[in-house]
Amino acid sequence: MPKTQPARGMRDFLPADVRRREYVIGVIKEVYERYGFEPLETPAVENIETLLGKYGEEGNQLIFKILKRGVHESSGEADLALRYDLTVPLARVVAEYRDKLPKFFKRYQIQPVWRADRPARGRFREFYQCDVDVLGSRSMVVEAEICAAASEALTALGFADFKIRINHRKHLTAILDAVQINEEDQTRALVVLDKLDKIGIEGVRTEFLELGFPAWVSTELFDFFARVEQGSESDNLTWNGHSLSEMRKFVEGHPEGEVALTELTRILDLVSAGGAAGKVVLAPNLARGLSYYTGAIMEITVPGLAGSLGGGGRYDNLVGMFLGQDVPACGFSLGLERIIVVMTEREMFPEALVSSPADIMVSIWNEGSVAESISLAQELRSAGFRVDLYPEADKLGKQFKYASARLIPFVAVIGDDERARGEVSIKDMRSGTQRSVKRESLAVTLRELL
Amino acid sequence: MPKTQPARGMRDFLPADVRRREYVIGVIKEVYERYGFEPLETPAVENIETLLGKYGEEGNQLIFKILKRGVHESSGEADLALRYDLTVPLARVVAEYRDKLPKFFKRYQIQPVWRADRPARGRFREFYQCDVDVLGSRSMVVEAEICAAASEALTALGFADFKIRINHRKHLTAILDAVQINEEDQTRALVVLDKLDKIGIEGVRTEFLELGFPAWVSTELFDFFARVEQGSESDNLTWNGHSLSEMRKFVEGHPEGEVALTELTRILDLVSAGGAAGKVVLAPNLARGLSYYTGAIMEITVPGLAGSLGGGGRYDNLVGMFLGQDVPACGFSLGLERIIVVMTEREMFPEALVSSPADIMVSIWNEGSVAESISLAQELRSAGFRVDLYPEADKLGKQFKYASARLIPFVAVIGDDERARGEVSIKDMRSGTQRSVKRESLAVTLRELL
Repeated sequence: MPKTQPARGMRDFLPADVRRREYVIGVIKEVYERYGFEPLETPAVENIETLLGKYGEEGNQLIFKILKRGVHESSGEADLALRYDLTVPLARVVAEYRDKLPKFFKRYQIQPVWRADRPARGRFREFYQCDVDVLGSRSMVVEAEICAAASEALTALGFADFKIRINHRKHLTAILDAVQINEEDQTRALVVLDKLDKIGIEGVRTEFLELGFPAWVSTELFDFFARVEQGSESDNLTWNGHSLSEMRKFVEGHPEGEVALTELTRILDLVSAGGAAGKVVLAPNLARGLSYYTGAIMEITVPGLAGSLGGGGRYDNLVGMFLGQDVPACGFSLGLERIIVVMTEREMFPEALVSSPADIMVSIWNEGSVAESISLAQELRSAGFRVDLYPEADKLGKQFKYASARLIPFVAVIGDDERARGEVSIKDMRSGTQRSVKRESLAVTLRELL
Repeated sequence: MPKTQPARGMRDFLPADVRRREYVIGVIKEVYERYGFEPLETPAVENIETLLGKYGEEGNQLIFKILKRGVHESSGEADLALRYDLTVPLARVVAEYRDKLPKFFKRYQIQPVWRADRPARGRFREFYQCDVDVLGSRSMVVEAEICAAASEALTALGFADFKIRINHRKHLTAILDAVQINEEDQTRALVVLDKLDKIGIEGVRTEFLELGFPAWVSTELFDFFARVEQGSESDNLTWNGHSLSEMRKFVEGHPEGEVALTELTRILDLVSAGGAAGKVVLAPNLARGLSYYTGAIMEITVPGLAGSLGGGGRYDNLVGMFLGQDVPACGFSLGLERIIVVMTEREMFPEALVSSPADIMVSIWNEGSVAESISLAQELRSAGFRVDLYPEADKLGKQFKYASARLIPFVAVIGDDERARGEVSIKDMRSGTQRSVKRESLAVTLRELL
């Protein structure tokens, strides 16, 4: 007999899970729509060349590859692959439909992605990303808008204590230049730095030594990070001012470093007028793993969660890999499962979500009255109620027990007496009381009771 | 440069497409919920053994298989596969979570499936199914309920001229027995019969001869179908009565044939009391390709569409393949893309769906007033409006043109004068008129205008 568990790292969602997920997705979507983003959907399956080489060495390893079909199956080769994120497909879409899309394309996309990662607590092989991206503008208004959209989405879900940490790829270049790490080693250095949260200062120090960087490199960097960190007890505004001045001292005169500081200053100024006001803090040690970022990079953290609720940044060159001509772009991705993990732990879901599957259950009196029950169910459904119909002419007690167990609040009964009088009995499963009403006024009564 | 088209047979959905799809899904979902069905979601990726051997020989060929990963990638073997329908995963889920699920598990599931079919008009390699299934009861109430749910979903979308064709696997056994086709040949005979719509009577005749069935077999069968067809000009009720009596004559005394006729009679009786009243017609030549059906089988057709909008039936043994113990089951699947094809051709989508991406666009007066525009956008979003913010300090005329092209009905302007007076200008892009309002009353004014 085949196994009945879902495949490794994949999950089934029973009704209560689906309702929780749909609630979160619905809230996020509503906020994204209010920010003027429009929905996009792309296929789960992409040509394999679309994905390869976009996510760095490690990313390539984690892509699920699909075997060729028919006579080519025996080659053991793959020509297709499962979507790994929503950003690369977006870049492909923008290149393909450039003429059909507005000059500034603001899209949201909430779909699953697949990564052959080792499953762990909160890490799955199929998970949803909730992305917003703006294409077509280099203005920092875009960074401010996507921070605000992500921030308001979390606020609407009930989060209050999150922070958006922000840094800049060019600032990272500047500080790595400042500690004399060669350009060709910088990508590897960033991959290590990105793991700071996971492996700690000592971990980074060790891996830097392994990469052949002298010990003073780590010392200089961590001294710098520590000086920035000194401001963390003050309010965000003061801390950001303090961080900016430390960052300026460290990379002074470096052309790219100057650009980074100018842009970060502008972004901090603009976010303070919008939906992410008070939420954004500078984080000069923030690296972000993906290789396609070119400007500001962001990450959302909440206390008590290792890792982030989401992240994003500017990637002005990715579309160019498909179009041959750069289109500036900047986006943010919220991770649905992380959000749900925290909301579940903190009991942030509205109580009404754990609802019953139906407003009322219509019972079946006996084999001869089945059609009568079907037609009553039909009337109530036409009136807009969610109606379950018990499928068998079981003993009434058994039917009541079933409704009770499923938390359905009312059961309708049409016995021979009721039928003769043109009435229906309604049993309130919480109080146990039962009353008869004229069939034609049942909908009105039920609406009052619910 | 990599190709920018989606993979073969797959599609990108731009915003207007997504909105149409979400509209249809929303309507179907609302009806399914009113029938007391609860949502289920399963992973896109299943263990390959879960799927193999469930869809017949042809189905096996069309499954997308996923290559093993890491050191096993070079083996060229597959251990995972993409979901091929929603029914087999449901059977797996019911076997896995039997104790957590209610005795009668009524679930709906609206998710994509993948088949490596040759793409054609209206046939894609990724497409959505909208399924309802009831597990746990052998009562014909279930058949009546799922026909009613599918029927009401289509009615709610605006379809009026569809028919639910119904037949019974055991009736097919009986008629094949009646024309002396051996049990071991019957599966192949049904596969041919299932293609009747596509290949016509002559096609079936030819393939039957190739399978070695004598010519009189086709003659007898088609004479029988023709006798049934004679009733097709009358109303459904009369036609069903006529069909039943022809079917009874043809399979009289055959034990399984008798069961089929009893069940079909009961189903026709029960559907007439519910949401599919007047929609169900007997179709003794309906076969349905999938091998797992055991009882009633159904298919929905509309004039002008070759093929069906959906189909389903009873499959009492499928869960047993996972559980080792049978659980009766019956379900119906609506095909999202077929529905959308017909709705598009018939212009059945509500006009309001082709809506603008935002209620209002906030323009940017100059570089110095960007924060002002951000904060105005923020105010309007908090008031519940969908607000686009132009990202750059372009000339105002250019910004107006952009809003116009995107069909955004209003543009807000805060020039230096307006700002000094605490006002905002609103330009109506349809009439071209412009008026100033106090900033604090902007939301109220906008609500009136929209």
